Amino acid sequence: MSLTTTNDAAQKIMQWADHLATFTAMEGGLLRAYLTPEHKLAHHQIEKWMQQAGLQTWEDSVGNQWGRKISLNPTLPTLLIGSHSDTVANAGKYDGNLGVLLAIEAMTQLMGEELPFHIDIVAFADEEGTRFNTTLIGSSATAGCFKPEWLAVTDNQGISMAQAMTDFGLDPMRAGQDKRNADDILAYLEVHIEQGPVLENLNLPVGVVTGIAGAKRYQFKLKGMAGHAGTVPLALRKDAMSGAAQMIGAIEQFAFDHGIVATVGRCDVFPGAVNVIAGEVHFTVDIRSQSQSTLESCCDKLLQDLTDIADKRQLTLTHEKLYQAEAVLCSDNLQQKWGEVVKKHTQKAPCFLSSGAGHDAMVITNITDIGMLFVRCEKGISHNPREQVMVSDVAVALNCLIDMVKKLAE
Amino acid sequence: MSLTTTNDAAQKIMQWADHLATFTAMEGGLLRAYLTPEHKLAHHQIEKWMQQAGLQTWEDSVGNQWGRKISLNPTLPTLLIGSHSDTVANAGKYDGNLGVLLAIEAMTQLMGEELPFHIDIVAFADEEGTRFNTTLIGSSATAGCFKPEWLAVTDNQGISMAQAMTDFGLDPMRAGQDKRNADDILAYLEVHIEQGPVLENLNLPVGVVTGIAGAKRYQFKLKGMAGHAGTVPLALRKDAMSGAAQMIGAIEQFAFDHGIVATVGRCDVFPGAVNVIAGEVHFTVDIRSQSQSTLESCCDKLLQDLTDIADKRQLTLTHEKLYQAEAVLCSDNLQQKWGEVVKKHTQKAPCFLSSGAGHDAMVITNITDIGMLFVRCEKGISHNPREQVMVSDVAVALNCLIDMVKKLAE
Repeated sequence: MSLTTTNDAAQKIMQWADHLATFTAMEGGLLRAYLTPEHKLAHHQIEKWMQQAGLQTWEDSVGNQWGRKISLNPTLPTLLIGSHSDTVANAGKYDGNLGVLLAIEAMTQLMGEELPFHIDIVAFADEEGTRFNTTLIGSSATAGCFKPEWLAVTDNQGISMAQAMTDFGLDPMRAGQDKRNADDILAYLEVHIEQGPVLENLNLPVGVVTGIAGAKRYQFKLKGMAGHAGTVPLALRKDAMSGAAQMIGAIEQFAFDHGIVATVGRCDVFPGAVNVIAGEVHFTVDIRSQSQSTLESCCDKLLQDLTDIADKRQLTLTHEKLYQAEAVLCSDNLQQKWGEVVKKHTQKAPCFLSSGAGHDAMVITNITDIGMLFVRCEKGISHNPREQVMVSDVAVALNCLIDMVKKLAE
Repeated sequence: MSLTTTNDAAQKIMQWADHLATFTAMEGGLLRAYLTPEHKLAHHQIEKWMQQAGLQTWEDSVGNQWGRKISLNPTLPTLLIGSHSDTVANAGKYDGNLGVLLAIEAMTQLMGEELPFHIDIVAFADEEGTRFNTTLIGSSATAGCFKPEWLAVTDNQGISMAQAMTDFGLDPMRAGQDKRNADDILAYLEVHIEQGPVLENLNLPVGVVTGIAGAKRYQFKLKGMAGHAGTVPLALRKDAMSGAAQMIGAIEQFAFDHGIVATVGRCDVFPGAVNVIAGEVHFTVDIRSQSQSTLESCCDKLLQDLTDIADKRQLTLTHEKLYQAEAVLCSDNLQQKWGEVVKKHTQKAPCFLSSGAGHDAMVITNITDIGMLFVRCEKGISHNPREQVMVSDVAVALNCLIDMVKKLAE
């Protein structure tokens, strides 16, 4: 494909992304949650584009949108390429959606080629968990990990997932029963915006993902004794805010020392008045590592460190695990092949980087090898209306994806 | 007075406090704000008790309730004794109220005695600022510090103080015009619960107040850059929560090092999600010192220290002063006299302690010498329904107050 053609294709992808962003439940912003009218409208549009690319389309049992490029030999395996079409509240236009649109356009470009595998393009209907808090519903169904108990989970209107599926036109009793068979799948490829600043810092349009970090999230509750800000001498205080501050400082230092990332994103102080010593502080910690064993040992050690701080201050610390996800590695073979196409299209040594964010690939790894490509995004900003990618980077990503498919066909 | 009589009187004061607590706007709790029906009912009851004690009663221009024990010689000066009758939300029964009730009961006991001064007992109608956020309205009017612009301040229903005065039956145009003349006043005495744990820790029923700490309150806004908790490496973060934690730790250490108290009572994190790096943190600091010059120099130095932390982390720190009150000293002469009566009634060396909390005395100091006595309260708990005092301590405080008046007559 000529440079001009690729740039035109990238421009078209950008316009598609703009158009997809109009399917939103939020005035002046983007919000497209699972099993909503916006989900249906967006998938109708995606289906139309898939059909224009020459793909056979269908919707699966949980509302994922599929499009198939059929090889002449029906007994050949299938290459999966996809990402998700749902969004967080007040989202950017490229998170997930870009990967779906790149895959569709790649199929348009590859339509003439006879390949030794079928290709299934998929738009997973829920990765973010915006509506039911349960994330990765779409890819879980594909990978055979859909849990029937999810059907009883309710959204903030009290509507169960089962009811929402029925309202959407799906049969909740069939949810997840059309999981894909591992033996039939060749591999899973996903292109996604980086959602971080690493590629921008290195001045690179794309990068090869080595794996997806494992994560644990905790809710901590630290109890002390509320009191009058003027009348209780420092030595007699059990100030939960000062204790929490020491812990948050220790968490940051711990993360530096152990080469992991740790984030305190919430901190609620009670009673929360300017002239009252904090009696209680609740805070969350999100800890991630590319290595599952590092993650496990760091969490154990950090919990002990925080408990020691609480004990020394005569505070009471309790915690609850909110979430955990195992670290997942991308296939070495796919990483190497991505590296080769990236080198070809950037004329630079490829950057290999791990993903701190979760992706559909971390579930699909249960049925096949995964290989991911990251696209640079401006300042690393994501989950934000200011999320931005460059057309020229989208063109590079498109060329890489097309050549990656060709390389797998070799 | 015999021990039994004093204990009976203390019991009566406790019952009065229980009864006053029934004048509340809050179901199941105590809330009595300025210029409310509860204010009127409570002051009617206080007036009745004042009259039973033989006092001449009147309401002043801002709704303070007064009761006068007249000396035979009308040209003699007047001793003021009082505290406040209003409360915070979900208050205890003794904050302010105990001082008013002790003063009334002391007058009952002293009614037969001809003293070389008049005594005016006062229940200030607003010290807490619960309704209009402007504190010390009652005592400010008495001390000539009532500001006419306060009349325009509105409560959370949008009702102005002027309107509330009119509704209450007062003339807002007269507010503060009946200020007391400094030349006519001998001194101001106030008995108040400690609202802190110092006396309990020393196992003492009462203590002599040396002064009221000066205070400054600041609102800080710390801005960094929000980001994905998984995708932004530590070294590329501008994490406002980690920065705030370092600052809160530095504030605590600073307070220890400089012998002041400092409290971070509020901390709000934005956007406040478990998996998002904090882009902004707002927190308050309340700083107090018995010495105004220490307070001033500490605030300057601390502001510089916090700015340095922000700079090193490439965060932006701004602050706004929410409030300030100058440190006020109690009269040496009155402190000494309180010390003598405390020693007599406790058989122990008196404890001299400063007040970290504000009191009406800090405004009355503008027209006369002030002298305060603190009463031990359980665990130092105040501004809380669990606020508690012991009957035996109330008896000691009553004896001290009666003897203090007699000592001033010597």
